[in-house]
Amino acid sequence: MAADPFDKAGLHQAEDVLKAHGVDAYFRAAAERTGDSHIIIDGRRVLMAGSADYLGLSTHPRLVEAAVAATRRYGTTVSGSRALNGTLDLHVTLEERIAAFLGQEAAAVTTTGFQANLALSALLGRDDVAFGDARNHASLIEAVRLGWGKARSYRDPEQLRSRLAAAPDGGGRLVFTDGVFSMDGDVADLRELRAVADAYGAKLVVDAAHDMGVLGVGGAGLAAGLRVDLITSTFSKAFGSLGGVLAGPRDNVRYLRSNARSVLFSAALPPASAAAALAALEVIAAEPERRARALDLAESLHNGLRSLGYDTRPSTTPIIPVRFTTMAEAGTFWAGLFEAGVFTNLVGPPAATTPALRLSLTANHDESHVATVLSAFHDVGGGRGTDLPPVTMTR
Amino acid sequence: MAADPFDKAGLHQAEDVLKAHGVDAYFRAAAERTGDSHIIIDGRRVLMAGSADYLGLSTHPRLVEAAVAATRRYGTTVSGSRALNGTLDLHVTLEERIAAFLGQEAAAVTTTGFQANLALSALLGRDDVAFGDARNHASLIEAVRLGWGKARSYRDPEQLRSRLAAAPDGGGRLVFTDGVFSMDGDVADLRELRAVADAYGAKLVVDAAHDMGVLGVGGAGLAAGLRVDLITSTFSKAFGSLGGVLAGPRDNVRYLRSNARSVLFSAALPPASAAAALAALEVIAAEPERRARALDLAESLHNGLRSLGYDTRPSTTPIIPVRFTTMAEAGTFWAGLFEAGVFTNLVGPPAATTPALRLSLTANHDESHVATVLSAFHDVGGGRGTDLPPVTMTR
Repeated sequence: MAADPFDKAGLHQAEDVLKAHGVDAYFRAAAERTGDSHIIIDGRRVLMAGSADYLGLSTHPRLVEAAVAATRRYGTTVSGSRALNGTLDLHVTLEERIAAFLGQEAAAVTTTGFQANLALSALLGRDDVAFGDARNHASLIEAVRLGWGKARSYRDPEQLRSRLAAAPDGGGRLVFTDGVFSMDGDVADLRELRAVADAYGAKLVVDAAHDMGVLGVGGAGLAAGLRVDLITSTFSKAFGSLGGVLAGPRDNVRYLRSNARSVLFSAALPPASAAAALAALEVIAAEPERRARALDLAESLHNGLRSLGYDTRPSTTPIIPVRFTTMAEAGTFWAGLFEAGVFTNLVGPPAATTPALRLSLTANHDESHVATVLSAFHDVGGGRGTDLPPVTMTR
Repeated sequence: MAADPFDKAGLHQAEDVLKAHGVDAYFRAAAERTGDSHIIIDGRRVLMAGSADYLGLSTHPRLVEAAVAATRRYGTTVSGSRALNGTLDLHVTLEERIAAFLGQEAAAVTTTGFQANLALSALLGRDDVAFGDARNHASLIEAVRLGWGKARSYRDPEQLRSRLAAAPDGGGRLVFTDGVFSMDGDVADLRELRAVADAYGAKLVVDAAHDMGVLGVGGAGLAAGLRVDLITSTFSKAFGSLGGVLAGPRDNVRYLRSNARSVLFSAALPPASAAAALAALEVIAAEPERRARALDLAESLHNGLRSLGYDTRPSTTPIIPVRFTTMAEAGTFWAGLFEAGVFTNLVGPPAATTPALRLSLTANHDESHVATVLSAFHDVGGGRGTDLPPVTMTR
């Protein structure tokens, strides 16, 4: 008798448990998004304090009009893979401009950021070893599982050093890291990782999903100015669009775009999404005040929460985690905030190391919204006793 | 000394060899797409005879206007995953309607078709065995590699039967198949696969990427009316949009949307793409003549090629493969057709079993375009001596 492979334990059961306790935090459908700062759920307007639209570009008129014009000109999709029949001049232009923005020689645009990271599996032959930070995004972890090489995880540059020292000679070595870790908002020490990688002949690949457009000089991300072997990133966060990018030395990019199955065997990025990402590049250059506002608001929310005693460490970025001991506690807090008109992200294992509410604001918010969030935290959970010192933001 | 993991043999080198012989078939950038029937490359207007836009919907006014309206209303992206903060009422409506269209209880919409198939990896625990047709799409093969279970391939229902008979008891058994195989356009015997799967307590998952919208009653695909445990598909072919779908019994869909990493950890489908897919459902119902025209043109092209002696077997669908002995021969033929103003897809191992030109027309073409393609084949390659009997199309 064969078992039912659909009948497995999983997160759907955790959702049911939370729901039975009145916590309906997942797959909530929004009927409207108003300037990225609010959404309407079940007829109620709530403050969106959990969007990755850091610069507030997804409703920016220049992105919207660029997407509209591209849809009218090229249609709603390109109906084919980049290699065979789905490349538009729009993709090529986006590749040239994003490469320049990231200070890299070349870039390849993929359909999603998830698929950009998955493409890395094509680097992992049987003799190669991938070293990944334990906090890396799921898509980097999937890439390593999908590749033929061996997988080693590390928790910091020192552990990476000892694992590289113990690695067999002969094969290739790749170090994969997020620039900003998506769950806790902490930052990788890219300079140290580069030095350690160099000492052992390893390549360094940095996922800039959460820093591209927001952090670093001109918003070029934390790897800007650093020698890296590849940058991966996404247009679905600060760039207000969809799609992924692989950027680096021309030969590295060329190898991946022609050999990675997630690139070869997927329909190309739609014209609207490519056009919106191109417009985002222009807005990021033309309106640097958006980046400044996003970071100022994040700092303000970080420190407001900390002055109430809510610890947002280890984050030093616009991703603001507030940790709880149990999912029940975090879930009840989520529901309290939602009731108070504030939408946050309820995360827990396996995605996050501990149960947490993950918050982020966009450049379309203002200080009044920070005050609203803080007041909701105070109403739901009170002060936490200790007034914590302010965090120093990464910029 | 560590090797360079980017320095691997691969398709980029095959591209270079072809290019040195004057065959520039990959990543060609189009400056325009006119009604899906033609594209403009390097200033030349060529007939697009290799698009998966079977119904010609990607430039249909209803899809274009739906995408435009959704972009203006919701913005250019939703900046988050479906589970946490990226669900719109638009996604929910699309899920309800596509489930009904496919005759299934429920559906989950994913960001790409590739990621819909990748989600299946969440079904494969260590005790489970996945049985996949050797001709399956790369994304189904990746899903099996990514899962924890064992992988067995099969070439026909009889071999599947013997492999199922030899499988260990206890774990779950899953049979994965394309409805229409993407490279050769041949069709799986779903009825027989269902019977074999039932005999051994296995679940059946069918990827309807190339048949949804085109084949089966009302375009509902080849699995329509058949009991299946899951249908996966994409909106990037006949539906003229982007995105994937997982459809089936409610519990099966629910398990996957909450546990598959390619669903959980990826930004949701953009509003424009969801709206275009919804509009496609309406057009498919309102304009059945598009499906008829796509199939008539495919039959006409199949049989025209066959009367010239070009064998298009084993295909019985709108995917029309013309096989060659070597990539050099196929490449030279591709270049000749391109010179004659006809764009086709040049495919070879590992994607296709043998070197081939893969052709497909859309409902925006007409019989004059079939004549143009046939005339180009005659000019480039002449007749092939034998006049082959007409193919009977799957409808």
